Amino acid sequence: MSDDTTTARRGALAAMGTAAFVGLAATAEKAAAQAPRESLLRSVITRGRLIVGTGSTNAPWHFEDDRGQLTGMDIAMAKMLAAGLFDDPNKVEFVRQDPAQRIPNINTGRVDIVIQFMTMNPQRAQLVAFSRPYYAEGIALLTSPRGRFKTFAELRAAGANARASVLQNAGADQLVKDALPQAQVLQLDTQANVIQAMEAGRADTAVVDLSTVRWLVRRTPDRFLDAGHSYRSQLYGAAMRQSDPDWKNFVDTVFNVNMFGHITDNYDGALKEFFGIEPRQRTPGFPPI
Amino acid sequence: MSDDTTTARRGALAAMGTAAFVGLAATAEKAAAQAPRESLLRSVITRGRLIVGTGSTNAPWHFEDDRGQLTGMDIAMAKMLAAGLFDDPNKVEFVRQDPAQRIPNINTGRVDIVIQFMTMNPQRAQLVAFSRPYYAEGIALLTSPRGRFKTFAELRAAGANARASVLQNAGADQLVKDALPQAQVLQLDTQANVIQAMEAGRADTAVVDLSTVRWLVRRTPDRFLDAGHSYRSQLYGAAMRQSDPDWKNFVDTVFNVNMFGHITDNYDGALKEFFGIEPRQRTPGFPPI
Amino acid sequence: MSDDTTTARRGALAAMGTAAFVGLAATAEKAAAQAPRESLLRSVITRGRLIVGTGSTNAPWHFEDDRGQLTGMDIAMAKMLAAGLFDDPNKVEFVRQDPAQRIPNINTGRVDIVIQFMTMNPQRAQLVAFSRPYYAEGIALLTSPRGRFKTFAELRAAGANARASVLQNAGADQLVKDALPQAQVLQLDTQANVIQAMEAGRADTAVVDLSTVRWLVRRTPDRFLDAGHSYRSQLYGAAMRQSDPDWKNFVDTVFNVNMFGHITDNYDGALKEFFGIEPRQRTPGFPPI
Repeated sequence: MSDDTTTARRGALAAMGTAAFVGLAATAEKAAAQAPRESLLRSVITRGRLIVGTGSTNAPWHFEDDRGQLTGMDIAMAKMLAAGLFDDPNKVEFVRQDPAQRIPNINTGRVDIVIQFMTMNPQRAQLVAFSRPYYAEGIALLTSPRGRFKTFAELRAAGANARASVLQNAGADQLVKDALPQAQVLQLDTQANVIQAMEAGRADTAVVDLSTVRWLVRRTPDRFLDAGHSYRSQLYGAAMRQSDPDWKNFVDTVFNVNMFGHITDNYDGALKEFFGIEPRQRTPGFPPI
Repeated sequence: MSDDTTTARRGALAAMGTAAFVGLAATAEKAAAQAPRESLLRSVITRGRLIVGTGSTNAPWHFEDDRGQLTGMDIAMAKMLAAGLFDDPNKVEFVRQDPAQRIPNINTGRVDIVIQFMTMNPQRAQLVAFSRPYYAEGIALLTSPRGRFKTFAELRAAGANARASVLQNAGADQLVKDALPQAQVLQLDTQANVIQAMEAGRADTAVVDLSTVRWLVRRTPDRFLDAGHSYRSQLYGAAMRQSDPDWKNFVDTVFNVNMFGHITDNYDGALKEFFGIEPRQRTPGFPPI
Repeated sequence: MSDDTTTARRGALAAMGTAAFVGLAATAEKAAAQAPRESLLRSVITRGRLIVGTGSTNAPWHFEDDRGQLTGMDIAMAKMLAAGLFDDPNKVEFVRQDPAQRIPNINTGRVDIVIQFMTMNPQRAQLVAFSRPYYAEGIALLTSPRGRFKTFAELRAAGANARASVLQNAGADQLVKDALPQAQVLQLDTQANVIQAMEAGRADTAVVDLSTVRWLVRRTPDRFLDAGHSYRSQLYGAAMRQSDPDWKNFVDTVFNVNMFGHITDNYDGALKEFFGIEPRQRTPGFPPI
């Protein structure tokens, strides 16, 4: 589950309150004032490689493959940008950072862009510029081929007999009840335990990110099922420094072209590899965006 | 009916001609040159409240509730912005202004943003920056449960027997005939009279804004019906000063997140309250925008 | 066929390599540094006419009508901009330029904007700012009413018996096989010969741009058919200088309003005239973009 998905995390953000954000805003402003006037678009081209802030421990977004190389949906988006800049998807340096460093590393200039399962929200938009969204995350219901209830319809029909595991936090009960109003809720301390409880039969479904459901079902279809219901969509975008429209325009155009234009193979390939999503049919004529 | 909907109003705008717009453009340019370089995003955060230009006499867009408080779709959008800035939807000061003050009050800095049923059009885009659209207005046909013809199909079938009331102006005839080519057209001097003529049976349908139809049907379903046909869509956007990409990016992100992201309750609630529109189903995965 | 459609052309662009783009980027940067700070939006309004770079020899995008006047989809978009600026679609000066001049003429200030069947791609986005897309080009299959196989289904069913003509280049075989995996490929040196081979019966289908298919079918339905399959969409956008957000915002708003707002007659008319596409149904309410 991304760090942004649950209401607990959103609650934490809200708890930072206005004062904290004003403080961060002042930092952002200062950083902007100190920044060179040249667009990052020019600096990055001159440097000859792109510097991307991301993580390494959250499949299918950003994680290490068998050879220790970063892979995942966020990594794929970064490589599309590098290909757009240098005709070479590998001219990218990844800075592995904690999610808490996402905004500071942009505004101190440590990274050119952050691509790290980042939910677009107003508080962050005070401090950074977001790209167009490249994915809409959601919440979904993970079930087991050996479970009592496999589909959303079965879980709903089970009423108060259905048991749902979920990461513990203030909004966890509501998160479950939005999908399964009568279900028993089992709050657990880690995402691994949430999923393990479902596999061990202590819960009938694990309520987790849609991307997690798709990734687990894609990798191990013998162990996991998607119950077939998703809700609470959130927009994921790349984040950049503010006051640099050339850089934002460039990133948006590269994302648009990879999602809707003539070079969709990499975006489609990543959706397929990490989520099992089939390529979208794109119809020429009236623009799709 | 908004001040923008009818061709008469558009005609009036056109009648201002190039010279008038060049004059206004010069004012805008001068204002931009005198403006502080700091983004309004920073100034507004520092000030601690948002200043929004809007109106107070056009339900369901901006009007007073029983306690004299402003409410309506435009007001809801303003509160979403304030919540995005201050975690408090009420940290907004409304400047009640005539529609004619919408552009001047932006370019003199009197308000941070205008949210006042403002049709996005090229003439205005010369002088202000528009946000992403937050509603698509249209024209629709209001009928009565006691009327001779209640649905669009019945009105069409009635041919020259159908009588339509409409606000008088140069394009009024065409406005009716685009929907009902053979109908008799009754042009009246005020919107109240247009609707009253229909209720009194002197007209079979009142040709008015779709938002007006939805609002009246929502409030008093015993008195009003939506004949079920809408046409001539117009984009409504918020307007801001130009040359301030950080402020525009922020507003666009807040609107995007409220319309398509994880905090759609307020937008959906406003569409439901003011227009009777059911919440849109949002599907995670490939981004909807 | 536009200069951008085939993989050969994309290959040529790639062959320019990073060094060439860095060189062009340096030019763009220098141009930006030398450019006056005033937005082109202001300069163009003051000048009283819009200067658009385009071509004159590629129907249905930009070509001469019987009286030697420029017409086509690109020309229609330019006139919408002029109407938005001056309430007069004819206050536009067209600079007829080779496609190779598209980016240089923007960055030297020779033209205000380029509207010339320009595929949005990352390499170009390093050097210019693109507008929102105004068309999604594609590849399609042109057939003859007198041919052996008229529809995509018939061509597919014909397997290795189907013969396809295509403009010769490195990716031509793949371009055909993406649609007709078993077809025989006949590579020819000019677009005229590609089409002529199909008409003469040496090929069963000509693999060309969707816009070419629609234009030929629209003009001479007795000679040409659209087999009914299109693929490989590409976004066409107008191109402007970078670092001028007011100009880009203005152009985007004018395009948005002409495509989705209250003044869609010209855009719809152009789609109908040049491609035979029927007007899109636009539904008021939740914004379409």
